[in-house]
Amino acid sequence: MDSESTLPQAAFQLTPQPLTREAFVPFGDVIETEGRDHFTINDGYAERFHNLADVDLTEADGKVLISIFRARPRPRPIQVEMMERHPLSSQAFIPLSSQPFLVLVAPAGEQPSQDNLTLFRTNGLQGVNFARGVWHFPLLVEHENQEFLIVDRGAPAANPGEKNCDLFYFDGVRGEIA
Amino acid sequence: MDSESTLPQAAFQLTPQPLTREAFVPFGDVIETEGRDHFTINDGYAERFHNLADVDLTEADGKVLISIFRARPRPRPIQVEMMERHPLSSQAFIPLSSQPFLVLVAPAGEQPSQDNLTLFRTNGLQGVNFARGVWHFPLLVEHENQEFLIVDRGAPAANPGEKNCDLFYFDGVRGEIA
Repeated sequence: MDSESTLPQAAFQLTPQPLTREAFVPFGDVIETEGRDHFTINDGYAERFHNLADVDLTEADGKVLISIFRARPRPRPIQVEMMERHPLSSQAFIPLSSQPFLVLVAPAGEQPSQDNLTLFRTNGLQGVNFARGVWHFPLLVEHENQEFLIVDRGAPAANPGEKNCDLFYFDGVRGEIA
Repeated sequence: MDSESTLPQAAFQLTPQPLTREAFVPFGDVIETEGRDHFTINDGYAERFHNLADVDLTEADGKVLISIFRARPRPRPIQVEMMERHPLSSQAFIPLSSQPFLVLVAPAGEQPSQDNLTLFRTNGLQGVNFARGVWHFPLLVEHENQEFLIVDRGAPAANPGEKNCDLFYFDGVRGEIA
């Protein structure tokens, strides 16, 4: 019997919810100052919002990379045909242009499920840090040339061919972002 | 004979020069996309400006921290009475609000000299990564609440009291930022 897989699969639209730290706990960290503790440094001329993400890059001599991504919008509607994950490390995206972006995630695990996708929309100031292994769709921006600072992992010098990006393609696309 | 040290020391004003990667080589990295190579990722929907800084945080099990600093301007003129350095690590500052800031540095070494200070002004998009041991003045912003993403070092779990900030106070202040 193989009846389940031959049933027609209804398509569905993913609707973004506002990004909050609480809702993002299963996926990683929200990098923001709102509601966070801070302490004064520099003789009173600066506040430090300290250690806002669980940076997880350096196991087995991974390198810490600071890069910039410049992204452009995908044509709508967006078919969610694949997800990616970094099995060895976290990956942080911090917006440099104070513009919102969409964050589509599925929990870490062997493979993502189209029945367990969550779509967030940031408030323009928030960054995110995907925890190791969390499935995510590539950057989803709303404007041309939105730039992000990225803090992620480079291969160890002794293992330059290290593979740290798994792609998973869904068998039949049902999720769509309008 | 001690005549040199008793001569009156003329005060001088520090004048900012535009920040360029070439001029900043002795002090670290300029984090910017301008003039940098990049490659396409995400099926053509993003460009990656890869590995823009020599991140040097993890010797002896240092932690990688992502933090945000919110800074306010110091009253002018600013007397350059001290400098600081981080003897164990680099420290990166990336502006989140596309506004210029001033960067005052002196070469790494036992102590900074008032005769060897360099003042830069960023173009609003540039960040900097101070190399390990480079003397620098704390954040110098021009507007209230300028925010920066900071990538710097946290103490190893096994050595929570690690000291990684040296302050040097000049004996007689001569440098001034108008």
